[in-house]
Amino acid sequence: MAQQTDLAYAAELDANDPLAHFRERFVIRDPDLIYMDGNSLGRLPQSTVTLAEDIIQHQWGDRLIRHWNEGWFTAPERVGAKIARLIGAEPDEVIVADSTSVNLFKLVVSALRFQGRRSRIVTDNLNFPSDLYILQGVIDLLDKQHQLDIIPSPDDIHGPVTEIQERLDDQTALLTLSHTVYKSGYIYDMPAITAAAHEVGALMLWDLSHSVGSVPVDLHAAQADLAVGCGYKYLNGGPGAPAFLYIRRDLQDILRNPIAGWMGQSNLFNFELEYRPTQGLRHFLSGTYPVVSLSLIESGVDLLLEAGLDNLRAKSKLQSAYLISLWEECLKSLGFTLNTPREADQRGSHVSLGHVEGLRIDQALINEMNVLPDFRPPHTIRLGIAPIYTSYRDIHTTVMRLQQVVTGRLYEKYSALAPTVT
Amino acid sequence: MAQQTDLAYAAELDANDPLAHFRERFVIRDPDLIYMDGNSLGRLPQSTVTLAEDIIQHQWGDRLIRHWNEGWFTAPERVGAKIARLIGAEPDEVIVADSTSVNLFKLVVSALRFQGRRSRIVTDNLNFPSDLYILQGVIDLLDKQHQLDIIPSPDDIHGPVTEIQERLDDQTALLTLSHTVYKSGYIYDMPAITAAAHEVGALMLWDLSHSVGSVPVDLHAAQADLAVGCGYKYLNGGPGAPAFLYIRRDLQDILRNPIAGWMGQSNLFNFELEYRPTQGLRHFLSGTYPVVSLSLIESGVDLLLEAGLDNLRAKSKLQSAYLISLWEECLKSLGFTLNTPREADQRGSHVSLGHVEGLRIDQALINEMNVLPDFRPPHTIRLGIAPIYTSYRDIHTTVMRLQQVVTGRLYEKYSALAPTVT
Repeated sequence: MAQQTDLAYAAELDANDPLAHFRERFVIRDPDLIYMDGNSLGRLPQSTVTLAEDIIQHQWGDRLIRHWNEGWFTAPERVGAKIARLIGAEPDEVIVADSTSVNLFKLVVSALRFQGRRSRIVTDNLNFPSDLYILQGVIDLLDKQHQLDIIPSPDDIHGPVTEIQERLDDQTALLTLSHTVYKSGYIYDMPAITAAAHEVGALMLWDLSHSVGSVPVDLHAAQADLAVGCGYKYLNGGPGAPAFLYIRRDLQDILRNPIAGWMGQSNLFNFELEYRPTQGLRHFLSGTYPVVSLSLIESGVDLLLEAGLDNLRAKSKLQSAYLISLWEECLKSLGFTLNTPREADQRGSHVSLGHVEGLRIDQALINEMNVLPDFRPPHTIRLGIAPIYTSYRDIHTTVMRLQQVVTGRLYEKYSALAPTVT
Repeated sequence: MAQQTDLAYAAELDANDPLAHFRERFVIRDPDLIYMDGNSLGRLPQSTVTLAEDIIQHQWGDRLIRHWNEGWFTAPERVGAKIARLIGAEPDEVIVADSTSVNLFKLVVSALRFQGRRSRIVTDNLNFPSDLYILQGVIDLLDKQHQLDIIPSPDDIHGPVTEIQERLDDQTALLTLSHTVYKSGYIYDMPAITAAAHEVGALMLWDLSHSVGSVPVDLHAAQADLAVGCGYKYLNGGPGAPAFLYIRRDLQDILRNPIAGWMGQSNLFNFELEYRPTQGLRHFLSGTYPVVSLSLIESGVDLLLEAGLDNLRAKSKLQSAYLISLWEECLKSLGFTLNTPREADQRGSHVSLGHVEGLRIDQALINEMNVLPDFRPPHTIRLGIAPIYTSYRDIHTTVMRLQQVVTGRLYEKYSALAPTVT
C-alpha cells in the first residue's frame, strides 16, 4: 500500500471515489492547473456551455421578447425551487435575483422594521465583511436608531457561540451570521443558534454563501427565519451569478420589501401607478433581473442535485481530512498553521492554512506552480474543495507544490504585492 | 416613383439607407418575423454571440478566478465609460451594475438624504410605473417624511411641463422624470426642465431607459445631476441586462450609497470590518455584479458607437415619420389613433397607436401575423423602431399586417387575454 504522501495514494483514492466521474462534467482544458478556489468561483459545467448557447442564440436571438413568457418570467422561482432542495426549504421559499448584498439589504431592512423598537443587530467578526458593510449602511440609513454588535471570535477560527448567546436579549432585533465562515470554514450549529435567537424574540438570518452546495443545510428543521446565499461559489453559477434569498413562508406576506419593484407588483401588466405587492415571495423581487446570469445557475444546481448533497458532503469531509493530514506530515514543520477546525463536523469545504509568508507563498503558487488558491489577510491561504470536481490528486499536488514553494524559497521574489481579486 | 404604400417604396428607402448594412450585424434567422419591440428587448448582435462564447468558455472556463483581474473587476467602469459617450457624460460619471430599479433606489435615497428637510418628490404619471413604485417604497422606508407628487399629463401623450414647473418650490427635494416617455414616446426638454429644477434648489434625476441608444442625450449640457437607464432596450445588452447610473462628478463623493457594499469598499481586499467607501463613482456599486449579463452589454454599445448616435437618430426620425404617414393613409380610418407626438423632435424612437380593440389586435398581430409589437393598457400598441436594425420594409409590413388584422377582423377570436410579458 502506498504512503499517503505518494501520488499513487491519491490516485487510489480517486479510483475508489464514487463521485469521480462528475469531474468530466466540467470544462477542464488545462490538465496541469490545480484549481482550489471553487469556494470563490465554481468551475464551468459542460451543461452550462450548452445552456448558455441556448439562452443566447435561441431564447434571446430567436424568441426575443416572447421568451419572457416561455421561461424568463418564472426563472427566479424555478431556480429558487431547485436551490431550496439544497437548503431544506420549500420550493416557494427561495427566489433568485440581485446580488447577495442587495438581497441582504432587503431582508435586514424588512426584519428591522418588523421588529419595531428592538434596536440591536448581533453578528460576529467572522461574518463576511461585505455583510457587515450592508448592516452598517442600513443602520446609517435608518437614522442610527439601531446599533451593531460585532462579537469577536476567541481564536479567529471558531464562532463565539457562548458570547453570542450571552449577548442576545429583548433588545435584539436580528442575529445574523455566516453559516460557514469564509476565512476558517467553521460551521455554526444552525438549530442551536437559531433557537437561541428565537428564545429572546430575535429574528435569525443566515448567510449560506459558503455552505450552499457543499454543506447540507436544513432551514426548516432549524426553523430559520431568513437566509441569503450566493450563486457563484459551490453552485457553479458563473462569475457574479445572482444570489438567492429565503423567507420562511409565514413571514413572506408580513415583511415588506424596501426596494419595491415592478417584478414584485401584483398584475404588473396593468401598469398601475400605485405599488401593490403580489402575494408570496415574489414581491421580494425588485427590478428586472439579469436573465442570462440568473438562468446559467440552473445547470450547475442540477449537477449538485444529481450527485446528491449528502454524497458530496461525505466526499468533502474525506478530502479535507486528507488535506489536513498531508498538512500535518508535509507543511506543519515548514511554518504552516491549520486555521480550520479539526473536527470534521465543524468545518465546511475549504481548509485554511496560515503562514507568515502567506501572501508571497500565494503569489508564487499562482505564478510559478499553476495552483489557484486564494488569500485572505493577514496570512491565510484558503484551499477550496469542491467535491463535485476536486480530485484527491488535486489536493496531493497542491500540498506538494506548497512544500516546493517554501523549501525552494520560490516566494522570495514576491513582495508587498496586492492580493489578487478573488 | 412608387407610392409610399407600396412595398417597392420601402425597398427603395432601404436601398438608400446608409445604415442598412448594420442589420446584418444582428442575428436574424426568421426572415418573415417583423420585430417591432427593440424598445423592450433589443435584438442579439452577432458580435455578442462571439463575446458570450469568450466570456463563458475562455474567461470563466479557462481563466476562472484570474479573470477578475483580467477584466471583470473593471467591467462596470469600462462599459459605463462607453455608455457615457451616448449620453453626454464623462467616462468616470457612468457605472453599470444592478437593475434600473436598484440603481434608482440608491440615487433617490441618497438625493433625499442630501437634501435634508426638503420633503417633496415631483414626477409625472407618464413615468415608468416601476420608477413610481421605487419612489413609493423609498417614502415608506423613510417614515413618510416625504411626499410624492405625480403630476398628470394633460393628454397622456405630452409631458405636463407647465404644471411641473408650477409645482416646483423650495420644498422640492427631487424632480425625476423619464426623458423619453415609455407609452407615448414624448421627449422632455432636458436642459429646460433641469434648469427649472435647479432654480428652486431641487436635484434632477432622469430615467434614460427609453432614450439611451436612440435619442441623443447631453447630460453635461443640461447640467443634470443624476440619471439611470437600462441596458436591454436600445443598447441591445440582452434580457434583463444590468442598468447604468450616472452621478455628476462633483456630487459623487457627497452622496452616500445606502446599499453599502463590498464592491464599493476602499481597498476591498483588506477585508476590514468597517465600511469605508472608495472615492468616485465606484462606491455606488454594492455587491458582486452579474458578470456575464453585464459584460454582454459591451458589444451592443460598440455597435451603436460605430453607427453613430446622430446617424441613428436621423434615421429613427425618418422611420417614425414614415410610419406616421402610413398610419395616416392606411390605419387612421380603421380606428387607430396616433398616441405619439407628431413633432419629430418631441418623440423618441417608438410610435404608439391606440385602438379600442388594441389588446386583441396585438394578440392577432403576434399569433397570426408574425409581427412583435408590445401592448400597454388600456389600448396602446407600441411599435418600436431600433434604427440600427429596423428596416423600412419592417415598418411597411407592420402597417400592412395591422391593416389586414382589422379589415379581416382577425382579432375577433381573441378576448380578454392577458397581455404578453414585455
